[in-house]
Amino acid sequence: MIEKNRDNAKMAETDQWESQLIVGRNPVIEALKADKLIDVIYVNSAATGSITLICKMAKEKNILVKRVNEVKLNNMAKGASHQGVIAVGACAEYVEPQRLLEIASERGEDPFIIICDEIEDPHNLGAIIRTAEAAGAHGLIIPKRRSATLNHTVFKSSAGAASWLPVARVANLAATVDMLKKNGVWIFGTDGSGESYDRVKIDGPVGLVIGSEGFGMSRLMKEKCDFLLSLPMAGKITSLNASVAAGIFMYEIVRQRNK
Amino acid sequence: MIEKNRDNAKMAETDQWESQLIVGRNPVIEALKADKLIDVIYVNSAATGSITLICKMAKEKNILVKRVNEVKLNNMAKGASHQGVIAVGACAEYVEPQRLLEIASERGEDPFIIICDEIEDPHNLGAIIRTAEAAGAHGLIIPKRRSATLNHTVFKSSAGAASWLPVARVANLAATVDMLKKNGVWIFGTDGSGESYDRVKIDGPVGLVIGSEGFGMSRLMKEKCDFLLSLPMAGKITSLNASVAAGIFMYEIVRQRNK
Repeated sequence: MIEKNRDNAKMAETDQWESQLIVGRNPVIEALKADKLIDVIYVNSAATGSITLICKMAKEKNILVKRVNEVKLNNMAKGASHQGVIAVGACAEYVEPQRLLEIASERGEDPFIIICDEIEDPHNLGAIIRTAEAAGAHGLIIPKRRSATLNHTVFKSSAGAASWLPVARVANLAATVDMLKKNGVWIFGTDGSGESYDRVKIDGPVGLVIGSEGFGMSRLMKEKCDFLLSLPMAGKITSLNASVAAGIFMYEIVRQRNK
Repeated sequence: MIEKNRDNAKMAETDQWESQLIVGRNPVIEALKADKLIDVIYVNSAATGSITLICKMAKEKNILVKRVNEVKLNNMAKGASHQGVIAVGACAEYVEPQRLLEIASERGEDPFIIICDEIEDPHNLGAIIRTAEAAGAHGLIIPKRRSATLNHTVFKSSAGAASWLPVARVANLAATVDMLKKNGVWIFGTDGSGESYDRVKIDGPVGLVIGSEGFGMSRLMKEKCDFLLSLPMAGKITSLNASVAAGIFMYEIVRQRNK
């Protein structure tokens, strides 16, 4: 229940972080050409020449570019020659969403899949991955746009669970939800307008949609849900932290499955 | 369920933050003499004279002193003459722990009190306060030492719930738990060695102890508990984020009360 492994997780995270830096112009261009998973590219805001090409390639691939100063790059590179650019690789490889159904099938269990509809805060995404792994979920699905990615902050916040829980990253979340439904998965959304979560029977193959911190589930996603669940709110506050709400829903599913 | 009020909370937090700055040597000394609730004091690391007295008074009162440079102080003071020192007041007044029992009694409800045993991360404390307020708890108890205080980060992470939920800050958490027990409150601890939380009847007056992020509950606190609860952990990860675990336990108590 408690974070005894914090130091280990921190060390693992630091190693992982350093092993993922791609330093210098040609290495970054080659990594982009090879479609290597890149989380973010730091460029010297004053740099010119092939940095322009790198920014263009990054834009085409929807990779975030952060303009920083020379000092920041020097600190990251720790003596290596960065030539004004350092890319940070993603901490883990993604899987295809179909793989999550296969994992459930291999374990002889009904699918239990968490769908994060634009969770942008890496601490929240990390905590959701951590809880999903502990709850026995088969994996997690995130969209390519407007979502935190498996970066080092997510990895750290997950206390390492991001190494164990398969995560699929998809271009079209709605189409993926349709695929899950075709495979017999019931989609449960979380929304203040839904029925109180403890009065709904949540069994069989489950896909649980967690809405974004700012706006909840998108309209399209809400329409795709088979059921909408809510939490009773007894006070003046109208919402919970996304990872806390996700944890309560996930463990209610576990509780009903174990009954 | 979702954080629609984020911007409002942010604005409220900013106002609150600015209204709490105590700027300059004499104002800070007077605030210390008046026992005003102070969260942290920023001093210019190069300053001398009465700054030494301020640091000594702060030490006696267990108030954190952070040594920073002139630029940081100038930025905080926004033009005011800070003379090398700025104190930040706590965001809310604390209540006495007995008050939490009175609130329950006034509402005609069995006490439902959250006891945070050294939660040091302000984001976790804020999220716990937010969930406790939403779950209808009567208040929260934190120790004076080794705990986050009601500072602006906690206030922000609580999405404003820290304005609504009464919080008691006590010198001796064990003695406070004894007081609660004498008043008929059953103390439920959260620990990996405990019984699965969904197999324990949690009713009547409840005090729920949440252990620290690093080490769980202290040995003394564990001994004081009437029951120990655990969460089923199906994966390789051995613990959840403290605020997520707290949310799952709190909402199980709500679920059992509403049955």
